[in-house]
Amino acid sequence: MIILCRDDLSPDQRERLRSAVDGLGFRWYERDEGGRAVFETAPEADAMRGDIENLAGVERVFAGEPGAHLVTRDHHGSSTEVRIGDVVFGAGETVVIAGPCAVEGLDVVLEIATAVRAAGARVLRGGAYKPRTSPYDFRGLGQEGLEILAAAREETGLPIVTEVMDTRDVETVAEYADALQVGSRNMHNFALLAEVGRARKPVLLKRGMSATLDEMLTSAEYVLAGGNEQVILCERGIRTFETASRNTLDLTAVPLLEERTHLPVVVDPSHACGRRTLVPALARAAAAAGADGVMMEVHVRPGEARCDSKQAIVPEELAQIVRDVAAIDRALRPAAAGTTAATDTEPVT
Amino acid sequence: MIILCRDDLSPDQRERLRSAVDGLGFRWYERDEGGRAVFETAPEADAMRGDIENLAGVERVFAGEPGAHLVTRDHHGSSTEVRIGDVVFGAGETVVIAGPCAVEGLDVVLEIATAVRAAGARVLRGGAYKPRTSPYDFRGLGQEGLEILAAAREETGLPIVTEVMDTRDVETVAEYADALQVGSRNMHNFALLAEVGRARKPVLLKRGMSATLDEMLTSAEYVLAGGNEQVILCERGIRTFETASRNTLDLTAVPLLEERTHLPVVVDPSHACGRRTLVPALARAAAAAGADGVMMEVHVRPGEARCDSKQAIVPEELAQIVRDVAAIDRALRPAAAGTTAATDTEPVT
Amino acid sequence: MIILCRDDLSPDQRERLRSAVDGLGFRWYERDEGGRAVFETAPEADAMRGDIENLAGVERVFAGEPGAHLVTRDHHGSSTEVRIGDVVFGAGETVVIAGPCAVEGLDVVLEIATAVRAAGARVLRGGAYKPRTSPYDFRGLGQEGLEILAAAREETGLPIVTEVMDTRDVETVAEYADALQVGSRNMHNFALLAEVGRARKPVLLKRGMSATLDEMLTSAEYVLAGGNEQVILCERGIRTFETASRNTLDLTAVPLLEERTHLPVVVDPSHACGRRTLVPALARAAAAAGADGVMMEVHVRPGEARCDSKQAIVPEELAQIVRDVAAIDRALRPAAAGTTAATDTEPVT
Amino acid sequence: MIILCRDDLSPDQRERLRSAVDGLGFRWYERDEGGRAVFETAPEADAMRGDIENLAGVERVFAGEPGAHLVTRDHHGSSTEVRIGDVVFGAGETVVIAGPCAVEGLDVVLEIATAVRAAGARVLRGGAYKPRTSPYDFRGLGQEGLEILAAAREETGLPIVTEVMDTRDVETVAEYADALQVGSRNMHNFALLAEVGRARKPVLLKRGMSATLDEMLTSAEYVLAGGNEQVILCERGIRTFETASRNTLDLTAVPLLEERTHLPVVVDPSHACGRRTLVPALARAAAAAGADGVMMEVHVRPGEARCDSKQAIVPEELAQIVRDVAAIDRALRPAAAGTTAATDTEPVT
Repeated sequence: MIILCRDDLSPDQRERLRSAVDGLGFRWYERDEGGRAVFETAPEADAMRGDIENLAGVERVFAGEPGAHLVTRDHHGSSTEVRIGDVVFGAGETVVIAGPCAVEGLDVVLEIATAVRAAGARVLRGGAYKPRTSPYDFRGLGQEGLEILAAAREETGLPIVTEVMDTRDVETVAEYADALQVGSRNMHNFALLAEVGRARKPVLLKRGMSATLDEMLTSAEYVLAGGNEQVILCERGIRTFETASRNTLDLTAVPLLEERTHLPVVVDPSHACGRRTLVPALARAAAAAGADGVMMEVHVRPGEARCDSKQAIVPEELAQIVRDVAAIDRALRPAAAGTTAATDTEPVT
Repeated sequence: MIILCRDDLSPDQRERLRSAVDGLGFRWYERDEGGRAVFETAPEADAMRGDIENLAGVERVFAGEPGAHLVTRDHHGSSTEVRIGDVVFGAGETVVIAGPCAVEGLDVVLEIATAVRAAGARVLRGGAYKPRTSPYDFRGLGQEGLEILAAAREETGLPIVTEVMDTRDVETVAEYADALQVGSRNMHNFALLAEVGRARKPVLLKRGMSATLDEMLTSAEYVLAGGNEQVILCERGIRTFETASRNTLDLTAVPLLEERTHLPVVVDPSHACGRRTLVPALARAAAAAGADGVMMEVHVRPGEARCDSKQAIVPEELAQIVRDVAAIDRALRPAAAGTTAATDTEPVT
Repeated sequence: MIILCRDDLSPDQRERLRSAVDGLGFRWYERDEGGRAVFETAPEADAMRGDIENLAGVERVFAGEPGAHLVTRDHHGSSTEVRIGDVVFGAGETVVIAGPCAVEGLDVVLEIATAVRAAGARVLRGGAYKPRTSPYDFRGLGQEGLEILAAAREETGLPIVTEVMDTRDVETVAEYADALQVGSRNMHNFALLAEVGRARKPVLLKRGMSATLDEMLTSAEYVLAGGNEQVILCERGIRTFETASRNTLDLTAVPLLEERTHLPVVVDPSHACGRRTLVPALARAAAAAGADGVMMEVHVRPGEARCDSKQAIVPEELAQIVRDVAAIDRALRPAAAGTTAATDTEPVT
Repeated sequence: MIILCRDDLSPDQRERLRSAVDGLGFRWYERDEGGRAVFETAPEADAMRGDIENLAGVERVFAGEPGAHLVTRDHHGSSTEVRIGDVVFGAGETVVIAGPCAVEGLDVVLEIATAVRAAGARVLRGGAYKPRTSPYDFRGLGQEGLEILAAAREETGLPIVTEVMDTRDVETVAEYADALQVGSRNMHNFALLAEVGRARKPVLLKRGMSATLDEMLTSAEYVLAGGNEQVILCERGIRTFETASRNTLDLTAVPLLEERTHLPVVVDPSHACGRRTLVPALARAAAAAGADGVMMEVHVRPGEARCDSKQAIVPEELAQIVRDVAAIDRALRPAAAGTTAATDTEPVT
C-alpha cells in the first residue's frame, strides 16, 4: 500500500500519519518524492486502506505494490484530454504535429513552420536541445533555438513542442514551449521526469527504444505523481533485430494503451522507420489504429537538414498525409471527425 | 553470377555450359537444386553475363551474389496478382481471410465457415496440421481435417488455405487445398520451401518470428526458383522484448515489401497480438498501410477452441472489421475499391 | 493431465483406458503421437493420477498441462550422460567438437579431421546437408558428403555429428552418423523432431535463433517422447538488436539449463559470434560457465571455405583453446578433470 | 573532420581558426561542447588535416565523421589502466567489485562491507541514488547514503563506486565517491555524460539495456571529450526476447571491446541474470573471457534487501567466486596473476 501525501502536509499531520502507519503492524518506509511525503507499506495492509484515506494530509492511497496507479484507466475512468496551446488531444480526432528535426536557424524554421501550417499541421515540433550519439555532432542551438521557435509560433499561430534533456533546463524550456518533450533516451531519466512533473506545461513522453509499455506507463506515473496530469504518450518504434527500418513501429501500442490508460497516445512514424518513403503508410496506419495524433519530421529541403535528413518528408507529402488521415477519421469515427474543425485545417489543394 | 538452367536441360547442353562457365576464368560450382542445374561463379564474371544468357538450356542468369533475384521488384517490374480460387490478391483491395485456428470437427468448421462467409470474408483458413510447442498438445486432425475443409468449401464456395509442415505431406495437402501455407516456424525449412516450389498451388509464406524481411524474400525465392511464382507474403508479428502482446506486429513491412518485391503482402493481426480485443485496430491499420489482405482467426464460441482461443474474434467482430476495411479502401484507394466487388461481400447488417 | 501410452498398447487396453479417462469426468482428447497413443485431459484430473498410472498399457502420466516433462530435472533426478561414439557428454568435463562448416570434398575433410584430432578435439562435425538462406548457395554434397565423413571417421577414429534437415533423410543420415544434428532453423520443425525421436542415434539439438530456453526444452521433449533419450542441447547465440556480432551468445543458458534439465549442454561460439578472433574467449567462457562441451568450426585454409569462412579458426587456434579449456576444467572441476582422460587428448605442443 | 580545441583557446586563436576552417572550402559548423570549442566540417577536408593540427589552440583533429575517436584502440594504442582508489583495472587481472544494491542504513552497510572485504572483494559498490521504475519505490538515501559509504570506506579501506543520476548531483557525489557510476538507464543521458566528463573522478559507464557496443563507445567518447580519460566500461546484460533471465548477458562484448577500445571492461552478472543461483557461473565465464573485473550485488541477509533481493548473493558465495576467478586468472594469465597481489585478497577458508 502506497500513501501519497498532500504537498501542504503539516509536521503534526505527518506525525499522526507515522503513528497510524506504524499501527498497521507491517514494515514501513517514509520518504519525500517530488516535494511530497510518501509512505509505503506491505500490500497486506490494503484492507485498512479506508482508515488511512480519511486522515488529514493524505492525498491518495493506492492498494498493492508500487507501480502505475494514477495513469491507469481503472483509476481515472474517462479519457483525459490534453491541450497543447488550444489544440486538443484525446477528443477522437487524429491531430498532426510536424516540423524540422532540429532548429537550425530563424529563416529556415519560419519557412518550414509556414509550410506545415499550410499543409494542415496543428502543432509545430523542432529541437533546440538535441540528443546526439556522438559528442562531435550538432546538438542544437539551445536557448537561441527556443527563441526561434517562439518567433515561429508568433508568425504561424501554431503551438510548440520541443525537447528538454537536462533537469537544469526545464524551467527555461517551459518558459518558451507550449509542451515539453521527454525523448526516448530519457524515458528512464527519473530525475528529469520528476522535474517535468513539477512544471506546469503539458508533457509529450516518448517511449524508450527498449521500454515496455508498462515501463512507459510507470515513467508517466512520475509526471502525474509530481502533480502534472497533462501527459501525452508517444509510440516511436522499438529496437528489434530487424535492420531494414531504423526501428520497429509497434502499433499494437495504440489499442493496448487505450485499454490501460486514460492518457492520449500519438505516433511518430518518422523516427520509427527512419526513411521518408515509409512515413505516409505508417501515418495512415496510426490513424486507422486509433491514435490521437501523428508527429512527423518535415523539411523544405531535406538534403540540407543537419540531422535525420533521410526521414524528413516535404510539405507536399505532409499535405497528402493530412488529407488521408482526415479521410480515415471520417470513415472510422464519423461522430468525432469535424467536431474540432478538421475541415478548416485541411488545405485547399 | 548465378546461372539457373531450364528443367529440360539436355546432357549435351550441360556439357557445353560447363565449358563456357569454365572459360570465364573464375572458380565455379555446379549443382542440382529443385530438379534444375545451377552454376555459380564469381560476381566478377557478371560482365560476361550476356554471353551465357544466350546459351541453350539457360533459363535465367543473375548478376552478383546468390540471394534474392526473382522476387525483387527490379526483376519483375509490375506487381504480381496471386489467385486463391477466384479471389485475387494484389489488385489494390484488402481481401479478408478468416477461419478457425485448428480444424476440430465437421460441424463446428461448417458453422464457422458459414458465419465468416456471411461476415464478408473471401477465403477460409484453418489448420489440419498444427505446429505445437509441446508434443502432448493437439496437433490437428491431419487428412481428416483436409476433408472437413473441402466440405466447408463445398458448402460456402470459399477457397481454402491451410498449413503444410512436412515435405512428405505436400502432395496430399495440395490435392485438397486452394493454397498452401508455410508457417512461421518453417520459414527457414528449406526442404519444405523447395517442395512447395514444385507444387502447382499458390503459397502463403508467413514470416519467421525472428526473420528479417530480406530473409523472408530469400525464402520466397526458393519457391519461385522451383518454378512456382504464385506466392503471397504474410507479416504476422516478430519476437521482441515486449511481452504485453504475443508478438510485435511490424507494419513497416507493408510499405517496405511493396518497394522491394512484386509479390502481394497480407497481414495476420491475430497471431501478432494474441488477444481478441486488439485485432480490430490492427486489421484496420494493415488496410490503411496498404496491405493486400488481412487474415484473422474466428470462432463461433472462442472459449471452446482447442488452440489460440484468446485471439479468436467472433463473427460479429469480423463483420465490423470487414466494413471498416472496406471503408478505408474506399477512402484511400478510390480507383481500386469496388472493382472486385467489395460491395457484394459486405454483409447486410 | 497427459497420459502417454506404451508403444505396444493393445486395442483392448486402449478401450479400457478410454473408459477410465472418460470416467474422470472432464473433457478429454485422444490421439497418436510418434506411434504412441496419448490421452489429454484437464489438470483438475491430476488428483486421480495414481489410478491411471496403474492401468495396463500406460507408460507415464504427467500432471498439469502439456509442456516439458521428460526433459525436466525434476522428472529425472540425476544427469543424463550422452555418448557420441565412445565420447561421453555430461560427465563433468568440457568435450571439444570441431570440424568444417560444410563437407566440401574428401581430401580437405581428411586434412581437417586429422588436424582437429591432433589439436585435441574428440568429435568431428561437418555438414553434408546445409541450410542456406539463398536457394542459389552451396547446400552441401548430400549422401556423398556422408560418405566422406564416414571415411574421415575411419581415418581418425573420431565419431561424427552431422545435420539432418528433411524427414525423408533421417534414416540415411542415421546410417552414417554417430549423432544427428537438428539445426537452429529446424528447432521448431516438429515433424523432423518426431522423426529423430524414432531414430536410435543421439541427437544434438541447436537452439532456434529466437527460441526461449523453455521452447528448446519442449522441442527436446518431442525427441524424448518419441523414445530417444540421448539428446544434447546446444546454445549457439540468439538474435538480438546487436549487430557487432552475428548473434548474441547467451551463456546464461548454461547454468539455467543445468537447473532445469538433466540433459547435457554444449556451446557453439562459432555461429554465435561469427568472427574468428572472438571464438577463443567465448569457448573459454563456456567452459568456465560449466558447459559439457564446445563445438567450433575449423578449417585448414579458412579463406577457401565455401561457407562461413569468417568464423573458422585454424588448427593452431583450436589447440590453444583445447589447452585453455582443459586448464579451466582442472582449475574448477578437479574431481571430474582427468577422469575421462583429458590428458591423452591434449596435444603435445 | 572534427577539430577539438584546447580549453584555453583565446579569442584571437579562435578567430584565426575560423578563417582557416573557412578557407578549406567546405560547409562548416562551430560550437561549444563541454566548455571547449569544436569545429566540424566535411570528411573531404581530411586531406588538409595536417595544416589544421599545427594551428595554435587546437587540441586534436579527427578524420572522418563525428563518432568515436578518443576511445578507439587505433587512437590510443596501448591499454588504459584505470584506478579506483589504489585498485587498478586493466592490468591483466580480474578485479572483484561487490556490495549491496542500495545503501539502506549505516549498520547493514558496514556489515556487508566488512564481509565483502573478508571474501576478497577489492572495491565496494552501493547505491545512494537509485533509479526505480515506479515513483513510489525506494529511491535511495541520497546524501545520507554517500556519508554511509564514506564511513564504510573508512572502516574497510575499500574504495567506493556509486551511481549519479542527475547533472545537479555530480559535484556532490564526486566529493564522496572514488568512482562515479553512470547507470544503464542514463547511458544515453548526454547532459550527464558531459557533466561527468568534467569531473575528476573515474567513471564506470554501464551499457544501456538496448545499446549497441558502438553506442556505448560513443557515450564513453562524451566523457573523454570532456577531458576525463579514466573510464571503465561495464557489460550488464541486454534486453532480448528471452524471459528466463532478467537480461541476456552479452559476453561477446568482452573480446569485442578489447579489439575496439583501450578502456578496461568489467561485467555485472547480477543485473544481467537477475537470479542469485546464476551469478557464480557467469562471473567465472566473465573472467575466462578476459574481463578486467566483475561486479556483483551481495547482501548479508538477501531477504531483507529493499531492492533486487533475488539477485543478491551471500558473502560465502562471493568468497567462492573470488577463489574461482583467481584460479581462472592463474590458469589463463600466468604472467598477470599475482602481480597485483591477488593472493593477499584471497580469504583464508
